[in-house]
Amino acid sequence: SGLVRIKNPHLDLMEEDVLYHLGMGTKTHNLPAMFGDIKFVCVGSSPNRMRAFAQFMHKELGLAGDREDLADTCAGMDRDAVYRAGPVLSVSLSAHGMGVPSISIMLHELTKLLYHAKCRGITIIRTGTSGGLRMEAGSVVITDTAVDSSFKPPFEQVVPDDVVVQSTELDKDLAEELRACSKEILGFPTHVGHTTCTYDFYEGQGRLDGASCSFSSEKKLEYLKRAYDAGVRNIEMVSTVIAALCGLCGLKGESSC
Amino acid sequence: SGLVRIKNPHLDLMEEDVLYHLGMGTKTHNLPAMFGDIKFVCVGSSPNRMRAFAQFMHKELGLAGDREDLADTCAGMDRDAVYRAGPVLSVSLSAHGMGVPSISIMLHELTKLLYHAKCRGITIIRTGTSGGLRMEAGSVVITDTAVDSSFKPPFEQVVPDDVVVQSTELDKDLAEELRACSKEILGFPTHVGHTTCTYDFYEGQGRLDGASCSFSSEKKLEYLKRAYDAGVRNIEMVSTVIAALCGLCGLKGESSC
Repeated sequence: SGLVRIKNPHLDLMEEDVLYHLGMGTKTHNLPAMFGDIKFVCVGSSPNRMRAFAQFMHKELGLAGDREDLADTCAGMDRDAVYRAGPVLSVSLSAHGMGVPSISIMLHELTKLLYHAKCRGITIIRTGTSGGLRMEAGSVVITDTAVDSSFKPPFEQVVPDDVVVQSTELDKDLAEELRACSKEILGFPTHVGHTTCTYDFYEGQGRLDGASCSFSSEKKLEYLKRAYDAGVRNIEMVSTVIAALCGLCGLKGESSC
Repeated sequence: SGLVRIKNPHLDLMEEDVLYHLGMGTKTHNLPAMFGDIKFVCVGSSPNRMRAFAQFMHKELGLAGDREDLADTCAGMDRDAVYRAGPVLSVSLSAHGMGVPSISIMLHELTKLLYHAKCRGITIIRTGTSGGLRMEAGSVVITDTAVDSSFKPPFEQVVPDDVVVQSTELDKDLAEELRACSKEILGFPTHVGHTTCTYDFYEGQGRLDGASCSFSSEKKLEYLKRAYDAGVRNIEMVSTVIAALCGLCGLKGESSC
């Protein structure tokens, strides 16, 4: 049916669902009226950039009204930044911070928002910057599979006394569609490959300029070479949990950085 | 000497150190002049709250000038929020997001900032909200040791091809000082105990109201009871990496949530 699936038997038993970090709730907001027609969710970096992206989409889609006036739908909270332009929701990641735990909070609440709003046929695209491996600056990497720092695919979700293993494969058809789109736009070399998702920006990505560093420059280069040989084309900090939650909840998901 | 230690042999060989996420650098900013007199760093939640905290400190310390006018020292970047009031730096965590990867980026750059500024005798206190275990709402938990979701203490930092294990014990004298302070203020029941740091807010902390949930209400309660019996008094998402990096770099660190 294309509806969002929620893999949580407790949720329908709750009298009210408060989406705390989004500043909305099922009793205080008419979510189907507000968001029922959303088809695309683009999650990206800083609030300013995602506002600019929503303004860009507003113009591209030829929507009526002043595109400078886009409201922040979560303006009540100072944590969040969610803008909309027609059927496109533009969500700031860095208002939520970088990394799996931050983005996971936002994804849980966003998925429930789309579920409560009875949205159908949702596509989620993560956009943003990442570190490329042997990629010309300005290239775009479309992720086929998100992998961990050992280049292994499954996402391990720790739950009380257990670890649940979730697939991190992204939507192949959507990846192909995005690759096809890239051919129409000059100046953006586009590649499809694995994306390594780390839990640390400095030592975890082999950087030598953190407050601590326990390895040599040679070790770093050898690690990055092994990553490339394993099919990794870029490194960032959120792709595994996006892939895992999209897979779990029946959302078409992609990452293009 | 009380100086900040940097555990990175590469850093002194670099011509310039750009603190990217703070929007500052050793060639573009006179860091000793700007921050050399800092003694306390308080890291907390949203930018608005940390601005209010800096204004509160400004008043408490009887500083000259208009406390409404505190400048955001990183105003150039829209990711960050760092305010100062005399020797106190007030840093927003949620401008950086929640969770270990986000806060780790900020801590690396903050530690290098304090190092380049030649600060001495720095104390870092993490403030903020957390989920209490059998704690009256409004209680304060001072952390003695940060532990993982299995209630075990060491922090595991993944580096290329290796895992480096770091201590998560916090400064005992500072914990005692904070506990002593709490006795002077009525209305804040204060406890010292372990703090569990998770990588996920919903399933990782036993919540039943995420977009996915693979366990029962009984399992959740049994997990929280085991946490309490292991000495855990609250659950949050950043304490292990704060404890680890403070220990590594010779900073007195504490968490009181």
